[in-house]
Amino acid sequence: MPEASPSKWHLAHTTWFFETLVLQAHAPGYQPVDSRWARLFNSYYEALGPRHPRPQRGLLSRPSLAEVWQYRRQVDDAMQGFINSAGAAEWSAAADTLRLGLHHEQQHQELLLTDILHAFSLNPLRPAYAPAPERLPDTTCPPLRWRSMAGGPVQVGHEGSGFGFDNERPRHTCWLAPHALASRLVTCAEYAEFIADGGYRQASLWLSDGWAEVQARGWQAPAYWLARAADGSHGDGYDHFTLHGVQALDPTAPVCHLSAYEAAAYAAWAGARLPTEFEWEHAAAQQSGDGSALLQQLHGAAWQWTASAYTPYPGFRPLAGPAAEYNGKFMVNQLVLRGSSLATPPGHARLSYRNFFPPAARWQFSGLRLARDEVSA
Amino acid sequence: MPEASPSKWHLAHTTWFFETLVLQAHAPGYQPVDSRWARLFNSYYEALGPRHPRPQRGLLSRPSLAEVWQYRRQVDDAMQGFINSAGAAEWSAAADTLRLGLHHEQQHQELLLTDILHAFSLNPLRPAYAPAPERLPDTTCPPLRWRSMAGGPVQVGHEGSGFGFDNERPRHTCWLAPHALASRLVTCAEYAEFIADGGYRQASLWLSDGWAEVQARGWQAPAYWLARAADGSHGDGYDHFTLHGVQALDPTAPVCHLSAYEAAAYAAWAGARLPTEFEWEHAAAQQSGDGSALLQQLHGAAWQWTASAYTPYPGFRPLAGPAAEYNGKFMVNQLVLRGSSLATPPGHARLSYRNFFPPAARWQFSGLRLARDEVSA
Amino acid sequence: MPEASPSKWHLAHTTWFFETLVLQAHAPGYQPVDSRWARLFNSYYEALGPRHPRPQRGLLSRPSLAEVWQYRRQVDDAMQGFINSAGAAEWSAAADTLRLGLHHEQQHQELLLTDILHAFSLNPLRPAYAPAPERLPDTTCPPLRWRSMAGGPVQVGHEGSGFGFDNERPRHTCWLAPHALASRLVTCAEYAEFIADGGYRQASLWLSDGWAEVQARGWQAPAYWLARAADGSHGDGYDHFTLHGVQALDPTAPVCHLSAYEAAAYAAWAGARLPTEFEWEHAAAQQSGDGSALLQQLHGAAWQWTASAYTPYPGFRPLAGPAAEYNGKFMVNQLVLRGSSLATPPGHARLSYRNFFPPAARWQFSGLRLARDEVSA
Amino acid sequence: MPEASPSKWHLAHTTWFFETLVLQAHAPGYQPVDSRWARLFNSYYEALGPRHPRPQRGLLSRPSLAEVWQYRRQVDDAMQGFINSAGAAEWSAAADTLRLGLHHEQQHQELLLTDILHAFSLNPLRPAYAPAPERLPDTTCPPLRWRSMAGGPVQVGHEGSGFGFDNERPRHTCWLAPHALASRLVTCAEYAEFIADGGYRQASLWLSDGWAEVQARGWQAPAYWLARAADGSHGDGYDHFTLHGVQALDPTAPVCHLSAYEAAAYAAWAGARLPTEFEWEHAAAQQSGDGSALLQQLHGAAWQWTASAYTPYPGFRPLAGPAAEYNGKFMVNQLVLRGSSLATPPGHARLSYRNFFPPAARWQFSGLRLARDEVSA
Repeated sequence: MPEASPSKWHLAHTTWFFETLVLQAHAPGYQPVDSRWARLFNSYYEALGPRHPRPQRGLLSRPSLAEVWQYRRQVDDAMQGFINSAGAAEWSAAADTLRLGLHHEQQHQELLLTDILHAFSLNPLRPAYAPAPERLPDTTCPPLRWRSMAGGPVQVGHEGSGFGFDNERPRHTCWLAPHALASRLVTCAEYAEFIADGGYRQASLWLSDGWAEVQARGWQAPAYWLARAADGSHGDGYDHFTLHGVQALDPTAPVCHLSAYEAAAYAAWAGARLPTEFEWEHAAAQQSGDGSALLQQLHGAAWQWTASAYTPYPGFRPLAGPAAEYNGKFMVNQLVLRGSSLATPPGHARLSYRNFFPPAARWQFSGLRLARDEVSA
Repeated sequence: MPEASPSKWHLAHTTWFFETLVLQAHAPGYQPVDSRWARLFNSYYEALGPRHPRPQRGLLSRPSLAEVWQYRRQVDDAMQGFINSAGAAEWSAAADTLRLGLHHEQQHQELLLTDILHAFSLNPLRPAYAPAPERLPDTTCPPLRWRSMAGGPVQVGHEGSGFGFDNERPRHTCWLAPHALASRLVTCAEYAEFIADGGYRQASLWLSDGWAEVQARGWQAPAYWLARAADGSHGDGYDHFTLHGVQALDPTAPVCHLSAYEAAAYAAWAGARLPTEFEWEHAAAQQSGDGSALLQQLHGAAWQWTASAYTPYPGFRPLAGPAAEYNGKFMVNQLVLRGSSLATPPGHARLSYRNFFPPAARWQFSGLRLARDEVSA
Repeated sequence: MPEASPSKWHLAHTTWFFETLVLQAHAPGYQPVDSRWARLFNSYYEALGPRHPRPQRGLLSRPSLAEVWQYRRQVDDAMQGFINSAGAAEWSAAADTLRLGLHHEQQHQELLLTDILHAFSLNPLRPAYAPAPERLPDTTCPPLRWRSMAGGPVQVGHEGSGFGFDNERPRHTCWLAPHALASRLVTCAEYAEFIADGGYRQASLWLSDGWAEVQARGWQAPAYWLARAADGSHGDGYDHFTLHGVQALDPTAPVCHLSAYEAAAYAAWAGARLPTEFEWEHAAAQQSGDGSALLQQLHGAAWQWTASAYTPYPGFRPLAGPAAEYNGKFMVNQLVLRGSSLATPPGHARLSYRNFFPPAARWQFSGLRLARDEVSA
Repeated sequence: MPEASPSKWHLAHTTWFFETLVLQAHAPGYQPVDSRWARLFNSYYEALGPRHPRPQRGLLSRPSLAEVWQYRRQVDDAMQGFINSAGAAEWSAAADTLRLGLHHEQQHQELLLTDILHAFSLNPLRPAYAPAPERLPDTTCPPLRWRSMAGGPVQVGHEGSGFGFDNERPRHTCWLAPHALASRLVTCAEYAEFIADGGYRQASLWLSDGWAEVQARGWQAPAYWLARAADGSHGDGYDHFTLHGVQALDPTAPVCHLSAYEAAAYAAWAGARLPTEFEWEHAAAQQSGDGSALLQQLHGAAWQWTASAYTPYPGFRPLAGPAAEYNGKFMVNQLVLRGSSLATPPGHARLSYRNFFPPAARWQFSGLRLARDEVSA
């Protein structure tokens, strides 16, 4: 898959980010470890020069993994030196980008896992990234409840002095119509009902582009689901391929590795729809405000597809310098996901966090929460 | 281009629409002229059975053009008969779909012209669809003025009993931030400055997907612009290919046949952005309210790309029956265009009208109006 | 299919051939009917200037069919005038190319039919090019007999003063090993046995590239064969789509519309192989020499795939001038077919005639005759 | 490039070949090291079960390189055990396949180098596989001389009890026309003249499919040639990328890394043609017969494209068992190369050896020797 990268590349790219945007920009006299590597480990920064084609990242047998680890140690050392010695002016100039680099690395920590899972899924040996944990007794899945939310103007977006990406700003008003949100994510068992009811064979449930994907790719279940029956039918249920190898599906766990098309088709089948990103954010903010637990699985279970296209907020300003390309230039042809997944590093996510992927993407830890319109009183 | 269809097909498809959705559904005892044609002239209605592949429409040498005209006459006659004889109950059941059929046909009247223009543009003979009109003296282009609009809640969407597509409803509230809109569309002369300034060679002006299109397709100017210089450079200016054949560009005319990517890149170069569809609709409604002329070229010049993804309004409900597929299933991967073009049939457009195309589409009569954020007082 | 052209194009192209290679080259003062048409109707002659892309031939709604007929009449008249008035020197210079133009037109007479058949086969209306003939009683198919041919040096290639293409010359010696040829072509009934025996599912019967085509295209029978059973199985036999519409297969007729891959796989299944083009030519020449009928269906039934790659004969010299591109530049990646088909114009074929197509081509009237090695005494 | 494989895969595949075709078939009680690996390391043997898709070989991060080396040691040990202990009957059954496995491994020794060269060429770091040898003084290139060969019947193909692949048999008669062969291969300096003379811009020199490749791929020089001038022109000459990194071209060395299309175009430009494989073999056999040195560089310099399509010899019989797929199923759409290259293992090549690749392939060590027709006395 052209979108996935080898682990060695992730390791080198996050290193390059610190080297280029912090050390070369701000550390006096810093010389890059190997000036030729900029072309290899630059992901998509046009302003930083030519780049190695993304689909060819897997062919780079040089530099070796050992060289990349050595690169990382050298840059780590140089970063430590810079942090120790930087004067106030240098620090002031570099601090925001350094902090961006840390959050950037956290993003790649999750991508590293999604890309390994994808690569291993193509290997007939079905290798496991890590041994399976001792299986805990299945928790009983709480019933899905609908939480009604009144309409009107609400504030969304990042505020305050804590870290947030440029795409979360500025905080602004938007107007919500009355609606309700499901108290928890859709489960594997619920999604299996959709399949059993012929969900993948009813065009009327699907967006037109989604139906075309279903036909072209032969989708019959979420990514990594494996029909147990020899004929691919779902009568015998499914296993799924995970970072722990092939495992039995947990019917109470959130369904995962869905495209937005599948999420939307499931929602249509269930007589509901996807939430907008602002419905999600507003409800999540309410939640944290009053301390109750109206909504479960906001974070740490699965990214939640929204119905919102990834577009700039009113008054959006990209970061200055090369980091301008971090987010803004991708604001078309993608949908927003909210929340976070089991693979998201602790502390990385926020209420205002906007993850984004094209609607056909399935290799992320992406699930869904239902929403529906409510008639105003 | 797979998206374009031959004129014969448009003629037959609009006829089939009336035959299938009105006559077969509502006229007692109606028998289709040829039951095998449903497969040929069904555009995208999954509920109405299998369809001939869109890219193969151009290969249909049978039925002949004469047969299609004969088909049209027969359906026209049957429609006339139905209208004359329908009882109140029949009429009540059929009237909305009949009216939809009329608006559907108006949409294809414009598509017929855009598809002819595209097909003729690929013919080295450069045929003209119609003789060029006597050239009127160039009007002086008024200076571009910025019209400031306050923020706050506004009502958008179709209301009342007049015709509107399902995608324009329900009328609802949205919240606008303070902004300003340009008084007129961007002109050919202004767009030529963007080109001369290297607009097509500066990645930083472009959305990432747009820049990829520029590279892959070698775009250097709007569709149908023809560099006069033998080497393709723009030093000698441009002609453009039109329904009247090759013509000199009118520098004061709105630039047309842009993709949304080009529209957005121009706006970035000009220090502005595209309006949202609601900024456009609200300003246009204000305009019609007070009778002044703050905004020119709202209609009849060129469709105007907006920054808004084509998504459902809160509470959106598709039409019942096969017409459910008319609009809703396309609500992903497309952007909204507002206004209307010189090729739009008179009376077809509305303030709340939502045209939509993928951002790379250039064969429509699509231009742009600038917008910018304003700081609230 | 990019390889097929519309009838209007064939009509114009054969006219252009006479206009360009005869009239413009040899008729004093001749002016082309429309100099812009050279680009449209030049098939593949690089030396004669730029050409309209082959896959876009179907989009040329201008010039109209009426204009092309008018073009043909004008060129016919000019040719007649040239023939009537040419002096000896002019005639001597032009005669060979004029004769080439006649044979070129005969080739397109057959291609016109194969391309119409292909285009009609994609039309769900399944139109008929011509009414079906009165069905004659099925002739009894004679048993297949093996005709043994001794090895040794033989003469092949065109000789004498009659017309032959450059690719048939020079006549030269080649050495044949002892072999045997089947007395007639493989029939539809015999080919149906191959299908019923799982021929399309046994990789071991196929050339590697052929097996890849079978997988990629889902071939299960010759082109234009239509399984009668709703599930596509062959239990109920096959109809086939022909220039007379859908017809029942005649089990005794030669199987037709095979790729070379299918022909070779059938031969492998039958414990035989395809003949080389020189085995075919030598046997056919023997036949005509002694007046007997050792081999049937040499001509007028179906083109016969050979095992011979289309390569130049020793001492091959292309024609001078633009006609150099007629044959020589295609001498790679194609296989030779010998004989002629029911669609070949009378008098067009010869013993030394070399037809050629890529091995995956199925839209020609192409069948097969079996051959096998024999041990020399 | 889908045709190239990683080094780890070559290592495992050649091991798998011995394990599967020798040990599993002939060593009593042998159990495969890991039965799941058959799918990974089977190259193209349909009879031996499903295979991992060739373009995905590069994604196999498991088994690791260490595991593959361990696999190799285990199979080596088992082979040694089998050789030591096999009885006469076992040996008789296994010996031919074992010998085939050795020659198979030699083929992959060369492919390993061509694939490494290709992968390194895509790496902007331009790594070197091995340090450059001390540069010897350039040998003076001897003048090209034409060696005339009389026509008539000759014997070609492998004979005797030494090893030969099935595609070299049976030895048989073919008839050659009088011709001449160049005494040595075409040099880099000579090929550079062809480029400087516009060889890559003259359609008339090229086969039609070759010209299409030149256009589609932008070929302007052999693979791995690097224009020294910044604008890609050849005024400043060329370096080339080799297993020793970027090196200056040796003008007297044989030109290498040509497609058959380039070889044929050069030959046309030089007023010559490619030899047939039988002209090559017969001349080489003459040479070895009389001890003189009429022809230089028959072996060890570069594989030499011939004009001969890769087709079966009269009476060809594939090997029995799975090895039937070794050669025969590729006998279409490929051309024969004769001789051997500097990367061919010593002792691997033979006079009757038939190497074969599609005509567009350039990543092998492939050059050319000129031939021309001669008029018989």
